[in-house]
Amino acid sequence: MSETQPPPTPRVRVKRMGERGAYDRATIDAILDATPLAHIGYVHNGQPFVTPTLQWREGDRVYFHGSAASRMIEATKGLDICLTVTLMDGFVLARSAFHHSINYRSVMLLGQAETITDPAEKELRLKNFVDGLFPGRWDGLRPVSPKELKATSVMSIPIDEASAKLRTGGPGDDEQDYALDIWAGVLPVKQVTLPPIDDPLGKPGLKAPAHVAGFRFG
Amino acid sequence: MSETQPPPTPRVRVKRMGERGAYDRATIDAILDATPLAHIGYVHNGQPFVTPTLQWREGDRVYFHGSAASRMIEATKGLDICLTVTLMDGFVLARSAFHHSINYRSVMLLGQAETITDPAEKELRLKNFVDGLFPGRWDGLRPVSPKELKATSVMSIPIDEASAKLRTGGPGDDEQDYALDIWAGVLPVKQVTLPPIDDPLGKPGLKAPAHVAGFRFG
Repeated sequence: MSETQPPPTPRVRVKRMGERGAYDRATIDAILDATPLAHIGYVHNGQPFVTPTLQWREGDRVYFHGSAASRMIEATKGLDICLTVTLMDGFVLARSAFHHSINYRSVMLLGQAETITDPAEKELRLKNFVDGLFPGRWDGLRPVSPKELKATSVMSIPIDEASAKLRTGGPGDDEQDYALDIWAGVLPVKQVTLPPIDDPLGKPGLKAPAHVAGFRFG
Repeated sequence: MSETQPPPTPRVRVKRMGERGAYDRATIDAILDATPLAHIGYVHNGQPFVTPTLQWREGDRVYFHGSAASRMIEATKGLDICLTVTLMDGFVLARSAFHHSINYRSVMLLGQAETITDPAEKELRLKNFVDGLFPGRWDGLRPVSPKELKATSVMSIPIDEASAKLRTGGPGDDEQDYALDIWAGVLPVKQVTLPPIDDPLGKPGLKAPAHVAGFRFG
């Protein structure tokens, strides 16, 4: 892991509410590691698109994958993309509409999407993706076939031109508004998992392994 | 509300896994109404950006707002954007890595972002935004000032060039893999709220109103 993160470029420096910006790798990595859902922005025939997909981090890079035939994969190969990860942590209810807000953690990465072409590396990355979410699951699965591997594209971008933006805490109202008889506070929001649902088509007697029940969002 | 949604353009037609695509307004509207978090894609100096923000729907349009000084507002005014809303509903754990997936509901809208310039309409839209999340809250707040209204940009795009993409249900494994001794199923994911937290700086004795405790994600 790089210990010397470059200073933020103007493109990723948080412009509004600069105090909410963070550029250190510990903050950025913690947000990337807290949820797999990412939104990838790319330009295709001059039109911006935003496609949701799952991401995972390994050291200084973030990876995502998709069908080799998908528009998102076709339109990101070797091209400039933006990968954004956002966690909504709460609604902030203030005494004026203007100061309503949300608590959140987000990361924005800019970079060129590189394609992993070596099948062995591709398989290793996918293993790390599965095991990163559900430790130890990969080795218990029916092995991946060369055909499946070929049908899957794995892409990555460096954590290089990157910024985090965060808001925490209660409302920030105008000084004179604190005296008003208006309830203010935070309604926390959290992404949780519910108990696993067995596939009804599965062999009887199989129990969800610990790596499923043990899953937690960060 | 339009009863005749135009057929999907090639730009929004779901290309991969076509059976997951939906283009009817009931499906699209239900997803937009289920969570306010959206990711807006735009192009600025040739670079795609993806900015998280909150959206709300009124009839045939989706609205979002931001500081008039923000990059996202500056870079979307009158320009082509993509607004994507995604709900992650579960991890789908299959018997092979290849068939692992997620259950989700997403909507992608393409369109030109229009700025609302009339202050009265701007205020009405913001009222509908607040009251859409927390019914009745607006009228109990300290009124919005002309200065605050001026500092806030409200944008909208039509629900016109739009598509939904959804996956539900259990894993879809290869026929011969169902006989394997591998647990498969779904780990459901849900966004929930926790009990509201009073602002410690507020007047004592104020209780969170019903519109706060009653909030539910769709």
